[in-house]
Amino acid sequence: MEISLYKRTMITDYLKEKQALVDHAIEQLLPGEDVRPALLHKAMRYSVLNGGKRIRPILCIAAAEALGKPADEVLKPAVSVELFHCSTLIHDDLPCMDDDDLRRGKPTCHIAFGEANAVLAGDALMIHAFELLAEHGNAQLGLELARAAGSRGVIAGQVEDLAAEGMKPNADLVEFIHMNKTAILIKASVRLGAIAAGADEKQLEKLTVFGEKIGLAFQIADDILDETSSDEVLGKPAGSDAEQDKMTYPAVHGMDAAQSKVRELTFDAIAALMEIKNDTTALRGIAEFLMNRTF
Amino acid sequence: MEISLYKRTMITDYLKEKQALVDHAIEQLLPGEDVRPALLHKAMRYSVLNGGKRIRPILCIAAAEALGKPADEVLKPAVSVELFHCSTLIHDDLPCMDDDDLRRGKPTCHIAFGEANAVLAGDALMIHAFELLAEHGNAQLGLELARAAGSRGVIAGQVEDLAAEGMKPNADLVEFIHMNKTAILIKASVRLGAIAAGADEKQLEKLTVFGEKIGLAFQIADDILDETSSDEVLGKPAGSDAEQDKMTYPAVHGMDAAQSKVRELTFDAIAALMEIKNDTTALRGIAEFLMNRTF
Repeated sequence: MEISLYKRTMITDYLKEKQALVDHAIEQLLPGEDVRPALLHKAMRYSVLNGGKRIRPILCIAAAEALGKPADEVLKPAVSVELFHCSTLIHDDLPCMDDDDLRRGKPTCHIAFGEANAVLAGDALMIHAFELLAEHGNAQLGLELARAAGSRGVIAGQVEDLAAEGMKPNADLVEFIHMNKTAILIKASVRLGAIAAGADEKQLEKLTVFGEKIGLAFQIADDILDETSSDEVLGKPAGSDAEQDKMTYPAVHGMDAAQSKVRELTFDAIAALMEIKNDTTALRGIAEFLMNRTF
Repeated sequence: MEISLYKRTMITDYLKEKQALVDHAIEQLLPGEDVRPALLHKAMRYSVLNGGKRIRPILCIAAAEALGKPADEVLKPAVSVELFHCSTLIHDDLPCMDDDDLRRGKPTCHIAFGEANAVLAGDALMIHAFELLAEHGNAQLGLELARAAGSRGVIAGQVEDLAAEGMKPNADLVEFIHMNKTAILIKASVRLGAIAAGADEKQLEKLTVFGEKIGLAFQIADDILDETSSDEVLGKPAGSDAEQDKMTYPAVHGMDAAQSKVRELTFDAIAALMEIKNDTTALRGIAEFLMNRTF
């Protein structure tokens, strides 16, 4: 399935380097654990500095770099999408939502700091995301994140995802949830980098297509991995009955169609990059990497 | 206690007129109940369109008007502080926080829409506040709200307020909680109006003092009203033992000192207004009204 327009070792080096850069920036841009209230800042840092892959901020950086803007000039927008993303994970994990006790092998925020502090740490991270964008000084960036994140974006996806529990999966609902819960923020990550780099209309349009396509591919690939990794029986047939009430792409369309769809979306994303003259090697590499990932 | 620099009937008319203006703007600026997901937008509208007094947006408008900017040009900043304020009330009311079932005589958001939707409606309102500020087009406004709202502002106040439960009230803690949980957002409301109206350095400085002083007075007056209205025995002595473990100004300093403090802060606030040449009649009227309110 490897399309290898970009050497795998090169992209993993790129990702590792940018991940370190983003982690360092998060360290710097979040208030320290000694700042009052210490408990809150501890909870915020605990929930963000957790070894995440930083795909969203790296996409923001790669989009900016493609347009000639160095990474260190877009660190605030890059970190802001990650903070927002982490805030939604904290709230998602709450007992009244998915009720998860573990994330990345560590106790979730509400297990470690209590439910009330988890609600507030999520709120504070969300607000801090907008603080960083405002500090960057361009109201267009705040607008971009707010529209992607809000009641017609990520939060819409979460509400419909919760409401869908126990319902029979259907194509329309899966598409709505995928688009809003995941793709819209990945698209916004790319757009934030592009806007911060002063993209022209055509560049922004093509990068938007790229972002949306890989965002959808990312979520479908996640569904596929979820299904294959959660199954104890190796080689279990795709789209089995047991999976029928999960609101996933394979549950609705079958595993073969899901795998084709990931490839198709990734090729479409890369095709959109070809239509601008900039050096989009890294963006293409990330798209291929995400398509082929096994975790 | 009336200082009546401004006729009481005039200020109540002013407040009524602006309240209607703000309510109408909120109606317009929140997505309709028919927008998908309908349940989320219903929960958001339910929690904001509830007959609130709209003190914060009215202060934003009055500050702008004092500097010659008409109300209808600052409606987005004005509404944004109210949306943020309401988002904190929704999260405050959650079972893991204050666990309140009623607000303004109606079921709280989580009682009416379920806990998960209440968390998400709060999140969405918070994000919508930043969306409106970004739409207004000046990143300075987003920065102002984010700094007042975040982990070194309102959220800090909430965390320390929760942590203080069961602790003996002390002056430092009461001051920190009052400043962060309440005063900082009232100050930001005034500052948002002033910034949106293009305040010069001196105007912004004096209006900042005004906002902070009335913000503190507002919270102490709230403490006083809470104590007097929650007490079934009329004429109960101030600072009674029963109140000793509430983190309130009267609990620490006694009722007489609390009442003097409200007056002192209000006079200081009004004195700050005198130092700018603009027509601050309405701001002064609001300060007096808040000092003398009985609800």
